[in-house]
Amino acid sequence: MNPILVEATRGGIVESAHRGALAIVDAHDRVVHALGDTQRPVFARSAVKVLQALPLVTSGAADAFALTDEELALACASHNGQAQHVATAAGMLAKAGLDESALECGVHWPQHEVAQRELAASTTPLSALHNNCSGKHAGFLCVGCLMARASGRDAREFVRGYVRAEHPVMREITAALQAATDADLSQAPVGVDGCSIPTFGIPLTQLALAFARVATGVSLSAERARAAARLRAAVAKAPFYVAGSGRFDTRVMQRLGERVFCKVGAEGVFCAALPEQGLGVAIKVDDGNNARAAEVVMAAVIEALVRLDDDERTFMRCLSDVTLKNWNGIEVGALRATAGLRAAFVAER
Amino acid sequence: MNPILVEATRGGIVESAHRGALAIVDAHDRVVHALGDTQRPVFARSAVKVLQALPLVTSGAADAFALTDEELALACASHNGQAQHVATAAGMLAKAGLDESALECGVHWPQHEVAQRELAASTTPLSALHNNCSGKHAGFLCVGCLMARASGRDAREFVRGYVRAEHPVMREITAALQAATDADLSQAPVGVDGCSIPTFGIPLTQLALAFARVATGVSLSAERARAAARLRAAVAKAPFYVAGSGRFDTRVMQRLGERVFCKVGAEGVFCAALPEQGLGVAIKVDDGNNARAAEVVMAAVIEALVRLDDDERTFMRCLSDVTLKNWNGIEVGALRATAGLRAAFVAER
Repeated sequence: MNPILVEATRGGIVESAHRGALAIVDAHDRVVHALGDTQRPVFARSAVKVLQALPLVTSGAADAFALTDEELALACASHNGQAQHVATAAGMLAKAGLDESALECGVHWPQHEVAQRELAASTTPLSALHNNCSGKHAGFLCVGCLMARASGRDAREFVRGYVRAEHPVMREITAALQAATDADLSQAPVGVDGCSIPTFGIPLTQLALAFARVATGVSLSAERARAAARLRAAVAKAPFYVAGSGRFDTRVMQRLGERVFCKVGAEGVFCAALPEQGLGVAIKVDDGNNARAAEVVMAAVIEALVRLDDDERTFMRCLSDVTLKNWNGIEVGALRATAGLRAAFVAER
Repeated sequence: MNPILVEATRGGIVESAHRGALAIVDAHDRVVHALGDTQRPVFARSAVKVLQALPLVTSGAADAFALTDEELALACASHNGQAQHVATAAGMLAKAGLDESALECGVHWPQHEVAQRELAASTTPLSALHNNCSGKHAGFLCVGCLMARASGRDAREFVRGYVRAEHPVMREITAALQAATDADLSQAPVGVDGCSIPTFGIPLTQLALAFARVATGVSLSAERARAAARLRAAVAKAPFYVAGSGRFDTRVMQRLGERVFCKVGAEGVFCAALPEQGLGVAIKVDDGNNARAAEVVMAAVIEALVRLDDDERTFMRCLSDVTLKNWNGIEVGALRATAGLRAAFVAER
């Protein structure tokens, strides 16, 4: 039974509560902090996009197509579907000689409500570029195009079906994920992700280990260690592209820069690399709630572990103890990290 | 510790899970089924709108303003903000000699994504009429206008501040809620709801009792019993107006008519009256998830307790064991009532 990590209060009582588990691990696979069941396989979903983007750099595709920081950040993104995200994804595909018709992620309206309304009021057609995963898929397609070039094959034909587990592109992505997590993915539970690629069930401790490796480079091959550092630096320089306006990941990395690399996934999964501490973080909220539960947990983790000045501490506290207001702007309650969650870090500070 | 009532599966394993509590009570206050903690105070939120609409009928306002079934259903609604909802709320206000400037519920974009996009692409201004509670508030204002008439006061001035607990209108609403639930609301936790009216913390058993009374009229005053029956009948005739396109409440009542009156509330609260069984139902999902948890629980309750033919049973099963598809239409998992939840009803059937 996992502990309650986040509470929503109203009228002085707890209205709702979120249980979950948390693993914080160093690059030598030592568990520094843990709460709840950290051994159960958890579908990592979009939280591991940075691991899935490693081949984009290690393959040479990032250099071959002269990808910018914005484009590398978008390859790690669950983006809002704002105009800049869409244009950047289109630009990545154009560099590889492709267009949006190569994307196999499916189509959905922009997740950002304002972007959705702006698109609805415009003449721009909705397309797979608006899918929050379009940058990740554009990255996969860049890898595929380079593979096709190397073997003298037609790129457009070669990349078809790249979302399937047995495609050469997806095999590279899965190999990178396996190397980073040390998980035997051939034995792991496997599901289909929202964007149609395989997603693997991996214990939180292994996910946290992978992010400790992203933070430090320890136990990664030299190429993967360099790639991880480059992706972290790109996201720190262009955090808008990893999420977008109003989003937790963007706001935190805009504020804290390279001190934190964090990435939300679906169903309450959230991972982070803390380079200064050499730590990886992996969170899973039992009920799958991201925006109001996993984010609050991550904010409390950052507050407890990352070097912050007073203003930064206040900024993070507003994300770990969130004032809730209603449609008239009246304060109605709070979303807050529980005392139990905060206590997990007290002994070590 | 409340039991797991709903699971989300992917790749053959449970990805996320929702805990909660459930009380099913008859009109003589006998608990027929219960799971989890049914005594903890739960903010009833929008699940009790039908109780809050009783004064609209008992005061004579529904007759004085010749409200239609659609308007009475809207007074009980958390609506989508679709054009018909907005026009109906405006019509109720016009009948009372008011307009949208009297609404104190605040403004938000339509909850229905298609309605939101249509509004964004139109020249219609966003207003408080689009708030999902605008019908409930229009009902409150009808009550207030009749009160003002009776005392010879200016209606527009009299109704100002009607959302406050001490306003004569809100006192009537609270009195109806207290009478139906048998809860002493002067001693109950009180919070501010999304639309700025007070919301009270009430145990699930008391909420379920109130809905058993709505189902049967037992232990309500004769006027309230008639009002409850009239509101149930109005919603059964016009279920689109209690929610809207694609919504659980609308779909279920379109299909099952007067056999079920169900109403979702915020934060995973869900209540229902089952007239043929003489039962009331109250559900609270711990983590506050409505759309994919409280609804699945309610579907399982209806499946277990309501008289259904084979087609109706299949229809309800699709709501209690929901196939999840991704953006490419690929089946990725399911949202389903747990065996533990279904077992709660087996002994009695």
